[in-house]
Amino acid sequence: MTKPLILVSNDDGITSRGIRVLVSVMKKLGDVVVVAPDSPQSGMGHAITIGNTLRLDEEEIFDDVEAYKSSGTPADCVKLAKHYVFHDRKPDLIVSGINHGSNTSISVLYSGTMSAAIEGAIEGYPSIGFSLCDYSAKADFSHVEDYVYKIAKQVLEHGMPKGVALNVNFPPKRNEPIKGIKLCRQARAKWQEEFDERFDPNGRKYFWMAGNFVNFDKGEDNDEWAIANNYASVVPCQFDMTAYHAITQMNEEWDLDVE
Amino acid sequence: MTKPLILVSNDDGITSRGIRVLVSVMKKLGDVVVVAPDSPQSGMGHAITIGNTLRLDEEEIFDDVEAYKSSGTPADCVKLAKHYVFHDRKPDLIVSGINHGSNTSISVLYSGTMSAAIEGAIEGYPSIGFSLCDYSAKADFSHVEDYVYKIAKQVLEHGMPKGVALNVNFPPKRNEPIKGIKLCRQARAKWQEEFDERFDPNGRKYFWMAGNFVNFDKGEDNDEWAIANNYASVVPCQFDMTAYHAITQMNEEWDLDVE
Repeated sequence: MTKPLILVSNDDGITSRGIRVLVSVMKKLGDVVVVAPDSPQSGMGHAITIGNTLRLDEEEIFDDVEAYKSSGTPADCVKLAKHYVFHDRKPDLIVSGINHGSNTSISVLYSGTMSAAIEGAIEGYPSIGFSLCDYSAKADFSHVEDYVYKIAKQVLEHGMPKGVALNVNFPPKRNEPIKGIKLCRQARAKWQEEFDERFDPNGRKYFWMAGNFVNFDKGEDNDEWAIANNYASVVPCQFDMTAYHAITQMNEEWDLDVE
Repeated sequence: MTKPLILVSNDDGITSRGIRVLVSVMKKLGDVVVVAPDSPQSGMGHAITIGNTLRLDEEEIFDDVEAYKSSGTPADCVKLAKHYVFHDRKPDLIVSGINHGSNTSISVLYSGTMSAAIEGAIEGYPSIGFSLCDYSAKADFSHVEDYVYKIAKQVLEHGMPKGVALNVNFPPKRNEPIKGIKLCRQARAKWQEEFDERFDPNGRKYFWMAGNFVNFDKGEDNDEWAIANNYASVVPCQFDMTAYHAITQMNEEWDLDVE
C-alpha cells in the first residue's frame, strides 16, 4: 500500500519552528514534501506573484524530506508544488503551518497560512491550516502534536467536504491540557488599527501599523470562544464568498435599470 | 444637506486610468477622498503590511480632490484612510477600482481591488469593488460610467446588507451596449497555472507564473455567464468564510476525540 503524499507549506518561512513540528508529525502519516517561503510572509492574505519572477530552490533542511524554498507567497508555493514539483503525482493532503500566532475569526482573510490551505482546496485537495495562538518564535508546540496528528488522520480517512479547507487554531500552552476539539464558526471580530507616526533620518514621515483584536461575538459556537476556553478550534472555510441571502434581498429592493 | 463622503482606492495604483474614471464619476455623487497605492498591487489578495513601515503622502493629482498615495496594499490604504486621513469623519461609501482586468469568480480571492472593498465592509461601511474585464492599461471605460454611477447611487440609497461588499465586473467595450445588470453568484472556476522556467545571467533558475482561466460552471446565474453575455455582474461577497453546512456533516461523521 502506498503511503499518502503530503505537501507541507507555511507562511513563517521554511526555517521556522512551527513548520519543523508539522513536518515531524506528518512523517508519521505519509511521504512528506515541503514547499515553503524562503522568508516570513505573515499577513500576505491570498497574494500571488504577478508581474515579478519567482525562485524555487531545493534545500536540505529536514531529515529525509524533499524540500524546496521559494521567493513566493504561500499561495505561490502551493501552485509551484502542484505544477512543477509534483508533476504527475497528486497530494493526498496539503497542510500549512504551524503558524506562530492566531488565525481565528477575521484573521483568516489576512492569513498567509490559510491562503496555502485555501489554494489547496481550490485545486480540489484536502487541505488544513494549523495555527498556534502564541506569536513567539520560540513557542512551545508540545501540547498540540497529538491534535495535529488526529485531525490530519481524520481528513485522510474522511476526505473533505467539497470546496472547503479547515482552519485549525490551538490555544497557547497553559497549565491544563487542551480540553478537546470544537467544530466552530468564524467569530465576529475585527482588528482595530493604530498608526504610529514617526520620522526617518531625512525628516520624512512613515508609519508602523499596530492592531488590537476586538471581539464582538457573544456566542459560544465560535473559534474565539473555543480558544479562550482551552479547546482546539476547527472552522471549515469555503472559498465561495457569495452572500446568497443578499442576492434575494437586493433583487427585491434595488432598482438596477440603467437607461 | 451635507454631501456623502466617498473614499476611492484601487490596486492598479493612483496614476492608473481606471481610478481617474472612478474619481470623476464619484465627484457627481459626493465629496471624494482618494487613498491609493503608489504602485501597482495586482494579485495582492487581502495582504496587509506587517513587520514593515508604511508611507502615506498627500498628492495633487486629481482636480479639487484630496488625495494620498501609500506604499501599502489596498487593505492598508483603507485602514490608513479610516484611522489617519478621516479621523472623526466616516465615509458613506468606499469604492475601489476601476480595475484593469477581470475580478470575477475565484479571482475575488486574489484581487487587491476587492480586498479594499472587503476591508471597508469589515469596518461596517458600504463598499464596492469595480473591475473592467479588459487588462489593457489604455482600456476604454466610456461604456461603464453610467453603470458605476447607478450602482453607487443605489448603495448610497439602500445601504448594504450587513457583512457584505459588492464585487462588480463589467464586460469589455463591445459593438453592442451593455445589456443591463445581473445579480449573480461567484462562478465555479479556477486558474490553471503554467510556470515558464528561465535562467538568469548568472545561470540561476527562475520562473514566470502564467495562468489560464478555466470555467467549470454550466449555470446562467453566475458572474462569468453575465460577462460572457454582455451584462454587468454584481456579486454580493461576505467575509464570513465559514462553511456552515460542513460543520453539521463533520459533527455527524468525524471522530475528533484525542486521548
